[in-house]
Amino acid sequence: MTRIVYINNKYLDEKNAKISIFDRGLLFADAVYEVTAVINGKLIDFSNHVMRLNRSLKELNINHKFKEEYLLKIHKNLIKKNSLNKKEALIYLQVSRGTMERDFIIPKKKLKINLFAFTQEKKLTHFNNNGLKILSINDLRWNRRDIKTTQLIFASLSKTKAINEGYDDAWMIEDDGYVNEGTSNNAYIIDKNNTIITRELSSKLLAGVTRNTILDVAEKLKLTIKERPFTITEALEANEAFISSASNLILPVISINKNKIGNGEMGPITEILRETYIKISLKNSV
Amino acid sequence: MTRIVYINNKYLDEKNAKISIFDRGLLFADAVYEVTAVINGKLIDFSNHVMRLNRSLKELNINHKFKEEYLLKIHKNLIKKNSLNKKEALIYLQVSRGTMERDFIIPKKKLKINLFAFTQEKKLTHFNNNGLKILSINDLRWNRRDIKTTQLIFASLSKTKAINEGYDDAWMIEDDGYVNEGTSNNAYIIDKNNTIITRELSSKLLAGVTRNTILDVAEKLKLTIKERPFTITEALEANEAFISSASNLILPVISINKNKIGNGEMGPITEILRETYIKISLKNSV
Repeated sequence: MTRIVYINNKYLDEKNAKISIFDRGLLFADAVYEVTAVINGKLIDFSNHVMRLNRSLKELNINHKFKEEYLLKIHKNLIKKNSLNKKEALIYLQVSRGTMERDFIIPKKKLKINLFAFTQEKKLTHFNNNGLKILSINDLRWNRRDIKTTQLIFASLSKTKAINEGYDDAWMIEDDGYVNEGTSNNAYIIDKNNTIITRELSSKLLAGVTRNTILDVAEKLKLTIKERPFTITEALEANEAFISSASNLILPVISINKNKIGNGEMGPITEILRETYIKISLKNSV
Repeated sequence: MTRIVYINNKYLDEKNAKISIFDRGLLFADAVYEVTAVINGKLIDFSNHVMRLNRSLKELNINHKFKEEYLLKIHKNLIKKNSLNKKEALIYLQVSRGTMERDFIIPKKKLKINLFAFTQEKKLTHFNNNGLKILSINDLRWNRRDIKTTQLIFASLSKTKAINEGYDDAWMIEDDGYVNEGTSNNAYIIDKNNTIITRELSSKLLAGVTRNTILDVAEKLKLTIKERPFTITEALEANEAFISSASNLILPVISINKNKIGNGEMGPITEILRETYIKISLKNSV
């Protein structure tokens, strides 16, 4: 079976899903995206993904605001057409400003956006008992990481470097020495007082949709949260560490730069956060 | 007449020039590009563009090296097929790592690159007597601007902001207060001693192909060159200022942030540099 993808109002065999070479996403990375988790055929945190997508578009002055129902229908159709009703998967969606003659100058006249989306089957809720080994890398990305653009080459090269050197992912370190986030996930530590620490939102990192829900879940569990920067040194002294993203939910971090964190396994708070996050998210899934 | 463009070994009507939505250039800005000037149907500084393209590919670990003759043929075909033999134009060429299932992790196995190119008619040698009015903007781009990737959204937004506020272009200011370059061109000032000053090459700016030739030309003209950073304040005290790029050759800068430079017209050294650059480049064109 070949995958059915969505592109500009059409559902097509993935082989035929093509876009003009004059798409501004292709020529200028003038495009934003979202990745939504699908569990048992239902969408996790969907409203928040749509909200963030609309914010990203606004920050790039792309004059387009999606209605949730409009995107929900596309996502639901993709789930159905790809027989994911009982499965776990991701749905990737990308919006660019549109197609026009190549020019750095964006015209005042509104362009017609280009929109495409596709599914990727992926096991999400099953945890295979392997925590992540993290490599720290200086963050060279642009300074508006709060906008979820396709300017991802540095994150991609960093994750690849980590993998090639025997790690599972990289954490991005700001010039100030503090951890911003992972290559495509938010980063957390849990200190000796069981306080969850994660860098506060700013243009230095993406406001994770999963991060947002996790902080709600942590509050419900009466855990203390401090949104502030932390260093790798501090992380190595922590009891636990973990990452979150739509495509990984919550995964424990067991070492950084080959130094073990805690006892080198998933910690108890990470575990309860993961279980509670999945439970609550499933209940709220659409 | 519709334009004929090149894509992956085919010459197609621009309307049919499409690329897979799984192209890594589209999904990760995992692509590099070059823009070559065409004058009287001949290519300016072509060898240097190919050299820089190969360097960009290498810096992104895209394991592909072009032979100059291979790309020359494509460029020549585009000139012919679009009847540009006696015209001025630009040829844009983009190479991505290739098409694959979306993943931050780049596989060790080499992908087949995606390559496309298209022409844009543009008057290049005619100078309309209007110098550029420049706006200065803090540089928020990623920290490897020496690699000519398609991560261009900040440059595009900056140029658009400049235009919308009544300027012609923007100069990008580093955190250290010094000018890096324009949105898609290198920046120069000429001080009271007739010394040409332009920021030295580093990861902060692109090694302009036109910049390279201009420094050669300036040397031939016995002009003094200092490759070092300069501030906007210093630029405002300069006799002259100008920018260079393949798509503009050399253009005078007549004001920055609404403050006039020199007498607010093209200066004599900029003029002789421009004329000599064009003369020498035409002689070396292919």
